[in-house]
Amino acid sequence: MREHALSDNRSYEILESLTTEVGARLAGSEADLRAVAWAEAKMRALGLDKVWKEPVQYPVWQRLSEQASVISPYPHRLQVTALGHSVSTPAGGVQADIVHVASLQDLKNTDAAKVRGKIVFIDHKLKKSTDYGEVAAGRSRGASEAARKGALALVIRSVGTDSHRLPHTGVMHYDEDAPRIAAAAISNPDADLLVRMLKRGEPVRLDLRIQTAMEGNFTSYNVIGELRGSEQPDDYVLIGGHLDSWDLGTGAVDDGAGCAITLGAAEFLRRHQLRPRRSIRVVLYANEEQGLIGGRAYHAAHRHEISRIQAASEADSGQGPVKTLRSDVVPAALVVVGQMQQVLTGLGVSAGGNQAHPGPDMGVLREAGAASFSLDMQADDYFDVHHTADDTFDKIEPVRIRQSCAAFAVFAWMAAQSPVDFGSGDELIQGRKNRTAG
Amino acid sequence: MREHALSDNRSYEILESLTTEVGARLAGSEADLRAVAWAEAKMRALGLDKVWKEPVQYPVWQRLSEQASVISPYPHRLQVTALGHSVSTPAGGVQADIVHVASLQDLKNTDAAKVRGKIVFIDHKLKKSTDYGEVAAGRSRGASEAARKGALALVIRSVGTDSHRLPHTGVMHYDEDAPRIAAAAISNPDADLLVRMLKRGEPVRLDLRIQTAMEGNFTSYNVIGELRGSEQPDDYVLIGGHLDSWDLGTGAVDDGAGCAITLGAAEFLRRHQLRPRRSIRVVLYANEEQGLIGGRAYHAAHRHEISRIQAASEADSGQGPVKTLRSDVVPAALVVVGQMQQVLTGLGVSAGGNQAHPGPDMGVLREAGAASFSLDMQADDYFDVHHTADDTFDKIEPVRIRQSCAAFAVFAWMAAQSPVDFGSGDELIQGRKNRTAG
Repeated sequence: MREHALSDNRSYEILESLTTEVGARLAGSEADLRAVAWAEAKMRALGLDKVWKEPVQYPVWQRLSEQASVISPYPHRLQVTALGHSVSTPAGGVQADIVHVASLQDLKNTDAAKVRGKIVFIDHKLKKSTDYGEVAAGRSRGASEAARKGALALVIRSVGTDSHRLPHTGVMHYDEDAPRIAAAAISNPDADLLVRMLKRGEPVRLDLRIQTAMEGNFTSYNVIGELRGSEQPDDYVLIGGHLDSWDLGTGAVDDGAGCAITLGAAEFLRRHQLRPRRSIRVVLYANEEQGLIGGRAYHAAHRHEISRIQAASEADSGQGPVKTLRSDVVPAALVVVGQMQQVLTGLGVSAGGNQAHPGPDMGVLREAGAASFSLDMQADDYFDVHHTADDTFDKIEPVRIRQSCAAFAVFAWMAAQSPVDFGSGDELIQGRKNRTAG
Repeated sequence: MREHALSDNRSYEILESLTTEVGARLAGSEADLRAVAWAEAKMRALGLDKVWKEPVQYPVWQRLSEQASVISPYPHRLQVTALGHSVSTPAGGVQADIVHVASLQDLKNTDAAKVRGKIVFIDHKLKKSTDYGEVAAGRSRGASEAARKGALALVIRSVGTDSHRLPHTGVMHYDEDAPRIAAAAISNPDADLLVRMLKRGEPVRLDLRIQTAMEGNFTSYNVIGELRGSEQPDDYVLIGGHLDSWDLGTGAVDDGAGCAITLGAAEFLRRHQLRPRRSIRVVLYANEEQGLIGGRAYHAAHRHEISRIQAASEADSGQGPVKTLRSDVVPAALVVVGQMQQVLTGLGVSAGGNQAHPGPDMGVLREAGAASFSLDMQADDYFDVHHTADDTFDKIEPVRIRQSCAAFAVFAWMAAQSPVDFGSGDELIQGRKNRTAG
C-alpha cells in the first residue's frame, strides 16, 4: 500500500483542480464560497461515504489598494502589501521618516521619543534557519507596539526567505489599548534598499497609502468528508487542511497542498477498498489565515466528542515530503506509534518523540485533550512563496506531494485500524502536565 | 593587474550607487535625467580625464495602468505588464476569448478566421537552452501579426526563464500596415494557468485593460567619459553599457551591471596609473531599451571617426562572469587577440573565434566597420529577472561582477596598448564579406 501510494498522482490532481478552478480564496470574498462548493463537489466526486459542511462566521476584511514609495533621499516605488486586518492610512496617506528597528523586541526597547510621528520599519529577516514564529511576531504585534509609542504606521520587511519583489502578507492583530495604525509589508529586495539608504545616514521618508475595509459578517463553512469505519464508525481519525488562502497567490502550498494531501490520502484508501475499523474524517477548514476561525468553530461544534477523536493531524506546511512523525498520545499507545514509524521509514520518515502539535486549526482540539500527531514536512522553501503572489501550482513537485499523501495514507490507515486507544481526554492532558512538571 | 582587479569591489559599489540613488530609470521619465546627472557626477568622482554628454532624442512612452483577469471559466486575476510602446486598449478594455498559439511562427500559420475578434495568446516559453531572439520575436512582432488577422489584443507568456509572478516587459513594434492593438505580457505562472484551463476544452475569456501614452519628445544624453591615451589619444577603445532601464525593477543586471563593469574597469586603470597609448572611452548610452536610440545617436555623431574606434565592446548581458572572448578584427591583429586570450585564461575566460558582435548599442558601429569584441557572459540566470520588477541589486554577486570588471580592464588595457591596428574600416568590412562568401 505504501509503495502504491507513492506512485499515486491523485493529490497532485486535486491541487491542480483547486488552484485552477478556484484559485485565490480569501476568507470572506466571493471566492471563499466558490472554494466551499468546489470542496463539497470534489469530496463527493472522490467517493467519500459522507460529505457535509458546518457554518463558520467571521467579519469581512477587504484589501482595496496599497502603495508605498520613498520620497527622499531617492525616489523609488516599493512593492508593498497591506497586512491582513490592517486599517487604512488616513486620507492622503502617511508621509513620514522611517525609524529602523531590528525586531519586535528591538521596537519594545526603543524610546517612544524616537518613534513618535514616524513610520516604524521592522527589519527582521527570516532566514532558513530562524524560527518563523519569532519573526512573524513583528508582523502580528508590531503595529500596536509602534502605535503605543506614537508611530503613524508600520512597515515590515516581508516575513519570507526569498529575495523576490513579491511582498508577503499575513494577519496582524490590534491590541485594545493602542491606536490602530496601518500595517504593511514590503518585499525583501525593497527592505534591502531601505537599509542601503539608511546606511548613508540621511533620513528616509516614505509615502504610504493603504486602503482596506472591515465590515459586515460572512458565513462560510468547514467542509467535511468521511470514510466510515467498519467497526467503531463514531470514533475517528481527523486529518485535513485549511481551504482558505490569502488573496495574492492561489494558495498552492498554503494550504491547497494540505487539503489535497489529506483528501488524496482518504481517497487512496477508498479506491483500494481499505476500510479501517474507525472512521477517517477529512476537514477542510474555513478561514485559518485570519485567526484559526474554522478550527475554533469545529471545536465549538464537536467539543463533546473529544474522546472519539482518536488521532488528529493537520497538513499545513506545504507540499512535503514528510520528514518526521511525532505523536502526543498516552504511553500505552506508543507501541502503535512505533509500528507506524517503522512502516513510514520506507518513505524516508524519521521517528520523532511523543510531543506533537497537530497543526493550527487542530490546536484547540489538542488543548481539549485530543491525541495528536505531527507529520513534519520539509519546509526549506515553504517560506519563499508563503503568503505571496508566488504561491501557485507551478511550485508543486509531484514527487514531493505524492510522498506526503502516502505518509498521510499510512498514518490515517494505521491510526484508524489500531486496536489500541490513543487516549484522547483527561488522562492525556494530565500526562502532558506531568511531563512538563517532570 | 589581473589578480588585483579580481579583488576590486569598485564595480559592485558603482552599481550599488546607481540602483540605490537612482533606481528604475525608464527612458523619457524624470528618472532618465536623474540617471544622466548621476552618471556625469560619478564619472567625475571616479577621476576620468574628460567627461561630457551628447544629446539623444526620442518620443516619450508612458505606462499608466494595466490589469488582466480571466472572466471565465474560472475568475482569476493575472499578473500583467504592458509591453513597451503598446497602445492602450479601448475604453472599457477588451473582453474576448483567447486563441492559443505556440509561437510567432505558429501565429503566422494560423487562419485569420480563428484569430478574428480574439485575444491572441502567444505561449512561447523561453528555456535556459532556447534562443532569446527567437522567443522575443513574438513579443516584438506579435501584435501586428495578430492585428492583421483581426485580433483585438495580444497577450504573451513572459519572455523569461523564471517561474515567478513577475511579468517581463520589453519593447514591441507596430508595422505600418497593421491596426495597432494593445500588447501585454503575463507572468509564467499565469501563462501556465491559462494552459491548464485551455486543456479542459472550454473557451477562456479574458478582460484586458491597458492604459499607456506616447506623446511628446524627450532629450536625454549619452554620458561619456574618457581616460586619455598617452601617445595616440584620438584613437580609442570603446566600452560601455546602457544607462536606461525598464521601469519595473531598478535595472541592476540590465544594464546597471554593464555600466558598472565598464566604468569600474576604466577607474581601475586610472587608479593604478595605467595610462595606455590609446584612449579608453566609456559610453553610457541613453534609451537602449526602446530601440537602441542612444547607440544610433552615438553613431550619427561619430560616423566620421570609425577608423579611430580601435575596438568596441559593450557589456549588456548581466553581471557575468565573462566566459569567452571573441573578436572581429583584421587578420594582422589576431596575434594581439591571442595575447589577450592568453592573459584572460587566468580569469577562466576561453578563447572564441574571430566573429563577434559588440553589443546592441555598438552594433551600428560594427556595421560601419568598427573592429569589435565580445566578452560573452554567463547568462543562465540573466533571463530570470530581465525586464522584471526583480531586476534589483540583491541579485548581484560580488565575485561575479568583480571577474567581469577584471576581464574588461584587461581587455581595454591590452587593446589600448596594442602596437597593432585592429583595422576598423573598409578592410574589415570587406574581410567579413569574404568570410561570409567563403
